[in-house]
Amino acid sequence: MSENHRTPVTVIGLGSMGSALAAAFLAAGHPTTIWNRTAAKGAPLVARGALPAPSPAAAVAASPLVVVCLSTFAATRAALEPAAAALPGRALVTLNSGAPAEARAFHAWAVERGARVLCGAVANVPSAVGAPDTLLCYSGARAVFDTHGDTLRVLGGDTVHLGDEPDLAALYEMAVGSALLPALTGFFQGAAALRSRGLTARSMVRFSEKWLDMIKSLLPVYAEEIDRGDYADGASSVNLFLSAADTDAALAAETGVDTSWLAPLHDLVRRAVDAGHGEESVAALTEVLRKPAG
Amino acid sequence: MSENHRTPVTVIGLGSMGSALAAAFLAAGHPTTIWNRTAAKGAPLVARGALPAPSPAAAVAASPLVVVCLSTFAATRAALEPAAAALPGRALVTLNSGAPAEARAFHAWAVERGARVLCGAVANVPSAVGAPDTLLCYSGARAVFDTHGDTLRVLGGDTVHLGDEPDLAALYEMAVGSALLPALTGFFQGAAALRSRGLTARSMVRFSEKWLDMIKSLLPVYAEEIDRGDYADGASSVNLFLSAADTDAALAAETGVDTSWLAPLHDLVRRAVDAGHGEESVAALTEVLRKPAG
Repeated sequence: MSENHRTPVTVIGLGSMGSALAAAFLAAGHPTTIWNRTAAKGAPLVARGALPAPSPAAAVAASPLVVVCLSTFAATRAALEPAAAALPGRALVTLNSGAPAEARAFHAWAVERGARVLCGAVANVPSAVGAPDTLLCYSGARAVFDTHGDTLRVLGGDTVHLGDEPDLAALYEMAVGSALLPALTGFFQGAAALRSRGLTARSMVRFSEKWLDMIKSLLPVYAEEIDRGDYADGASSVNLFLSAADTDAALAAETGVDTSWLAPLHDLVRRAVDAGHGEESVAALTEVLRKPAG
Repeated sequence: MSENHRTPVTVIGLGSMGSALAAAFLAAGHPTTIWNRTAAKGAPLVARGALPAPSPAAAVAASPLVVVCLSTFAATRAALEPAAAALPGRALVTLNSGAPAEARAFHAWAVERGARVLCGAVANVPSAVGAPDTLLCYSGARAVFDTHGDTLRVLGGDTVHLGDEPDLAALYEMAVGSALLPALTGFFQGAAALRSRGLTARSMVRFSEKWLDMIKSLLPVYAEEIDRGDYADGASSVNLFLSAADTDAALAAETGVDTSWLAPLHDLVRRAVDAGHGEESVAALTEVLRKPAG
């Protein structure tokens, strides 16, 4: 162990994601100190060589690089309050969801206490931690990223520094992540419809995967339209989506599935038509979303 | 031309999708007859060798395989009414969106008039027609698929017969497609948020693509949970999504983006928690969607 030249790291917060982070550090040979309010959660990691700290202060003091993975910025701050004396000079990395404003407030709090801070986000599930294409985004102190980038890359090969503004990772996570629940619910609704007909959800997977690939192929096109603010050349017009309301009503009628959650989306399409975007690209919905609802 | 042994085909309906279908048949060397209510739309295809028919009846009579790509089943039937005398023995393929009930009704109408019928769906954009991995689903007369499968594969290499029930393609298209508008709107909302901060939509694309890949990787897992009706082992619990309402409110507050369309999704999550699914997989939302809203 004394020959280990890998950066010692501390992981605070051992939920499923925090545990996956600590396990990845351990697997890569980093001396890994852990702390969790319920210490028992760390037992499987201790069995693999993790060093349990008796307090957050001891955990922070144990390593130059401290990764905190709690549910919110408020929880992160609450856990670190009693460890404030150990923060000066420490590279502190947060990996939790939260609003940009919360990221900024936390960052200011921690910087005031002498820490150098990166606020990050894991755009994936715990089982993806450590994989070469797993994406982790960081924002804040570039120097921390430069010093500890290789260590952070242990958590996912696709590790990105978005910029010095500490809330960028939170902003991008929110911007990208807001598609998750809607997309999943669309899949669940389709599965419910098939089940009502005695068909399996599994039989739909291959088609849904293709569908997601198709959506993926459209994103660069839509992004360019949005950045130009020019929707004239749309292959899929807003008007094409007008009939979605009828389709969803038919799906509900035939399968008994609740499609009512889609009603505001139909309203959005109608508002886009009313605003004159009917024959333009469906990406023009972006303009309607930028205006507060009437 | 007399040496061309490829099956003659007719394409009725020359919107952007129908034109793409006819162009693919022409490119593959099929003698291709076309008809459109507004004949001028066929001019680019005639320039590439398509044969314009003077009437729907003449168009149907011209080929053993007739593909109709109009906006609805009602429009399809209206176009074919005056061609009914030419339908007996014809292989008739529809490619349009519509409800399963409409597919069944159209199928019955066309079979009564002597046609052998496949009701299909293109789960893609016109520019994808003809590509080796483009998916087209058909349901109905298996014999038509067996006879003309190679010709239909000209329209997309991933060509599938879902079963003899004529409405299966419509059902799967509806089940799979109901995720489209929600997923796109999620992306547009994120783009609107970034634009409000002076960032580009383009800067989000790479992350959104990863996000879609992540969703893709989850679908087989969720489908299995749904088919088993067992959500106990969920890696991403319903409770994890409870905070989505706060996140969306924060996004709205910070960026001025309208996130109100997500409110019914938050209600859905809360209903799932109320129904006891809080600690279960988020795929348990399927069970809530199967019950009519209160």
